[in-house]
Amino acid sequence: MSEISFGVVGVGNALVDVLSHADEAFVAAQCQTYGTEKGAFALIKESDAIKLYDAMPPGIEASGGSAANTMAGFASFGGNGAFIGKVADDILGKVFQHDLRAQGIFYGTEPLILGPATGRCLILITPDAERSMFTSIGASAELSPDDIDPDIVASSRITYLEGYSFEAPQSKRAFHRAAEVAHASGHKIALTLSDPFCVDRHRHDFINLVQNHVDILFANEEEIKSLFMAQSFEDAASAINGHCEVAVLTRGAKGAVLVSGGKHIVTPAHPVAHVVDTTGAGDQFAAGVLYGLSQGMPLETCGKLGAMAAAEIIGHTGARPEIPLKTLLKSL
Amino acid sequence: MSEISFGVVGVGNALVDVLSHADEAFVAAQCQTYGTEKGAFALIKESDAIKLYDAMPPGIEASGGSAANTMAGFASFGGNGAFIGKVADDILGKVFQHDLRAQGIFYGTEPLILGPATGRCLILITPDAERSMFTSIGASAELSPDDIDPDIVASSRITYLEGYSFEAPQSKRAFHRAAEVAHASGHKIALTLSDPFCVDRHRHDFINLVQNHVDILFANEEEIKSLFMAQSFEDAASAINGHCEVAVLTRGAKGAVLVSGGKHIVTPAHPVAHVVDTTGAGDQFAAGVLYGLSQGMPLETCGKLGAMAAAEIIGHTGARPEIPLKTLLKSL
Repeated sequence: MSEISFGVVGVGNALVDVLSHADEAFVAAQCQTYGTEKGAFALIKESDAIKLYDAMPPGIEASGGSAANTMAGFASFGGNGAFIGKVADDILGKVFQHDLRAQGIFYGTEPLILGPATGRCLILITPDAERSMFTSIGASAELSPDDIDPDIVASSRITYLEGYSFEAPQSKRAFHRAAEVAHASGHKIALTLSDPFCVDRHRHDFINLVQNHVDILFANEEEIKSLFMAQSFEDAASAINGHCEVAVLTRGAKGAVLVSGGKHIVTPAHPVAHVVDTTGAGDQFAAGVLYGLSQGMPLETCGKLGAMAAAEIIGHTGARPEIPLKTLLKSL
Repeated sequence: MSEISFGVVGVGNALVDVLSHADEAFVAAQCQTYGTEKGAFALIKESDAIKLYDAMPPGIEASGGSAANTMAGFASFGGNGAFIGKVADDILGKVFQHDLRAQGIFYGTEPLILGPATGRCLILITPDAERSMFTSIGASAELSPDDIDPDIVASSRITYLEGYSFEAPQSKRAFHRAAEVAHASGHKIALTLSDPFCVDRHRHDFINLVQNHVDILFANEEEIKSLFMAQSFEDAASAINGHCEVAVLTRGAKGAVLVSGGKHIVTPAHPVAHVVDTTGAGDQFAAGVLYGLSQGMPLETCGKLGAMAAAEIIGHTGARPEIPLKTLLKSL
């Protein structure tokens, strides 16, 4: 693998989502129980995940994980991608593997034989289409530096890292190993900040990464404000200027701003008939931008692809595209 | 349980669906391999299910089974229901149990400890929203007459049986036991014919059942034509007249006809903005009719509830309602 094989390799949690439509009162009660807020990401124990699963409404299961969702979108556009992340050797692990490989993504991380089960993310979708996530991270926390195949990372133009990996010491080390290899190969590093509370817990590390190592940054409004402890989006967008080649700042229904070389490129949100579930909107925005960048498209077009992919995903339940994004690309 | 506790008890296969969007060529190739036709239901071996799963596009997992889907819809309307069907003691079995119980359905069938895994239905959805089903029936085939809890059946106003149960000798005996108990208790028996090829394989048994035991029959156009080997829908609709209290004959986008006491009540299809996946449309039509009947509503209204529930299900991927049907009922 001495030549470039992949446009992007994603490194992140390997999770299977359980998605349920739930009412506001139920979600409020769970947020209180687990000390989190509606719309956020909370890490919970396996035993609590069993309790919450028993209590929650009927659901569907779908492969998830933030960077893995992005890679699925990237491949759905027609991109050539790889993924590194840890499942266990169990039925949910097989589901996760199947869904990535069937999407044409190279995924060779060895499943965990002894240890926790494949991680699960219990997602409660309120009638306003907002998702609140309760994650039992399972085998994903066991991703080790040894799982970072240097050949894969060295043969990828962009290494895409998810901030959620910072939540476990072992996967954080794996994250840093991937960044080192990517840098040493002279390739680009992309990072998504993942969640405002995750940023809050690891602000110092994230700022160091962003200022010194990250070429392409993805963050939503709350995350970038949290990173710089800024009062307004405008302040946060100014603060990031000059630190990364591109910063992709998403703002939900208000669209996105791509900050690059002192310019602010505003991308409106793509129209959606009926917003069902916002799970994975940020992941798919990143997929569109990464695909555009991998094809050498101008930033304006990258933003449009991101908005288009995000619009596909929020029109149905689940965080990965139902319609091949390359089909939508043709119609653009 | 001497008093009536349940409006309906469903008896049928306990399956977990794997739903994938696939192109026409892929589905045509699978149909040829497994000797079936697009839009139909095929039974395949566990080893073939593994092969097909490996080959098929990324999917989502969702609890399924025809009668179980109907019970989920019935409960989503607010009905008090029960279900009898066999899963294995494995992760997919737990998913199936959770989704029924979380919907408020009484489900007490003991999981199979030794034997095949929980049954899986691999569903390929073509761009025309038609679903083709490849089922590895697994533990469902092991539903035995001993699993038919006579207290549950005797305390249900309607016992709803799915024709698919006829495909395995053991579950067929369980099906007959349920019908005997229901009859002996003086309650009604409802049957869905499930699939035209299933009808073709068991025509003699089905005709005997329909003519002598079934009070409420559900069939789509192809199934009722297959039952009577009729050339036209009109001939088939005439042939059923007088044999059942109500025959509910669904015709996809052409709506449905409810045949009762010599009258034909025509129900138009409910408008749908964008048809995504027809999986479970018949199951949800039955749910609406059964809920209406359980509430003593006139047949015209029962037909409308069926059309409304079917419309909800075909607007998204998966065979069970995402929006509580009682919410839609209020807006009707």
